[in-house]
Amino acid sequence: MEIYGDSKSGNCLKIRWTADHLGIPYRWIELDIMKGESRTPEFLALNPAGQVPVVILDERRPLAQSNAVILHLAEGSDLIPTDPYDRAKMLEWLFWEQYSHEPYVAVARFQVRYQGKLVSELEPRIVERGKAALQRLEDGLATTPFLVGGRPTLADISLVAYTRMAEDGGFRLADYPRVQAWIARVEQAFKIA
Amino acid sequence: MEIYGDSKSGNCLKIRWTADHLGIPYRWIELDIMKGESRTPEFLALNPAGQVPVVILDERRPLAQSNAVILHLAEGSDLIPTDPYDRAKMLEWLFWEQYSHEPYVAVARFQVRYQGKLVSELEPRIVERGKAALQRLEDGLATTPFLVGGRPTLADISLVAYTRMAEDGGFRLADYPRVQAWIARVEQAFKIA
Repeated sequence: MEIYGDSKSGNCLKIRWTADHLGIPYRWIELDIMKGESRTPEFLALNPAGQVPVVILDERRPLAQSNAVILHLAEGSDLIPTDPYDRAKMLEWLFWEQYSHEPYVAVARFQVRYQGKLVSELEPRIVERGKAALQRLEDGLATTPFLVGGRPTLADISLVAYTRMAEDGGFRLADYPRVQAWIARVEQAFKIA
Repeated sequence: MEIYGDSKSGNCLKIRWTADHLGIPYRWIELDIMKGESRTPEFLALNPAGQVPVVILDERRPLAQSNAVILHLAEGSDLIPTDPYDRAKMLEWLFWEQYSHEPYVAVARFQVRYQGKLVSELEPRIVERGKAALQRLEDGLATTPFLVGGRPTLADISLVAYTRMAEDGGFRLADYPRVQAWIARVEQAFKIA
């Protein structure tokens, strides 16, 4: 497998962590999205959406969308619950991540860290929804050590990717103590440095 | 199963169409999101994210996120390809729908149809990305009648939900002839009126 990714992108790192955990060999091909390297004709042939990550599977078949890729790689492994309801709740977190978390928590970080915005210059909507997402995680961790039950799943890999970088976007993780403790647990479970 | 949904919402209709196709019985409980009915304490107890749809499964267990729900309902059915790569490509479309299509195509429609904006008052970013999403569908349908291979899958159900309403948001479907023909095929396959 080849992974076309940008190491600055949490979406790309999800795939690295999943592959490492499962012992799936890969070649990492570093692209710099800030330099437009995900918009070249060669890259658009792999993913017409012009987004990293993309993985190239056997028979040179491309696959995009970070959460689709980790679901594909982890099929049949201990990262996907066997109980149908737990599995469905894991999927709920994965879709929620892309709709209600990443567009705020990751975008705030991107604008501050890579586009030079001040935290005070972020759109209020981004800050407000980012905080709501972190609070949703805090509430979701009230009774369990991981997002779906007692052991780590793809939901934790997916959600930790940008949550652990939230302070780069001006969010205060100390306001979410359960989230902070969960980040440490997930980093340890997946040897994330 | 109970479905808490708003019939104006394509995300909610996805679940109705999937359940109807699979012959899964349900009770539909209509909520009006414009009247704040997805923000009441009772509803937030079902889905802390405050979003419709939510379904209530056996043992009163709630499940949110439209694409997670249809994946759960359709597990093992002909709506999910058995080939692992086709299945992964279907998941890629589902995540892309929530990240790159719904926030533009559905949001434009919502603002025009339900918030009274003129098409000319829409944020240029929404219009531009909505058009890019429709073009991505047009390109994706260049060689196949449905999004993943020769027969309808959850990718078609998910993507058709707001694509068929795109003109409400000021997009011109006549500019995307393959998309137009695909909408008709999907509506026919799932008896969508």
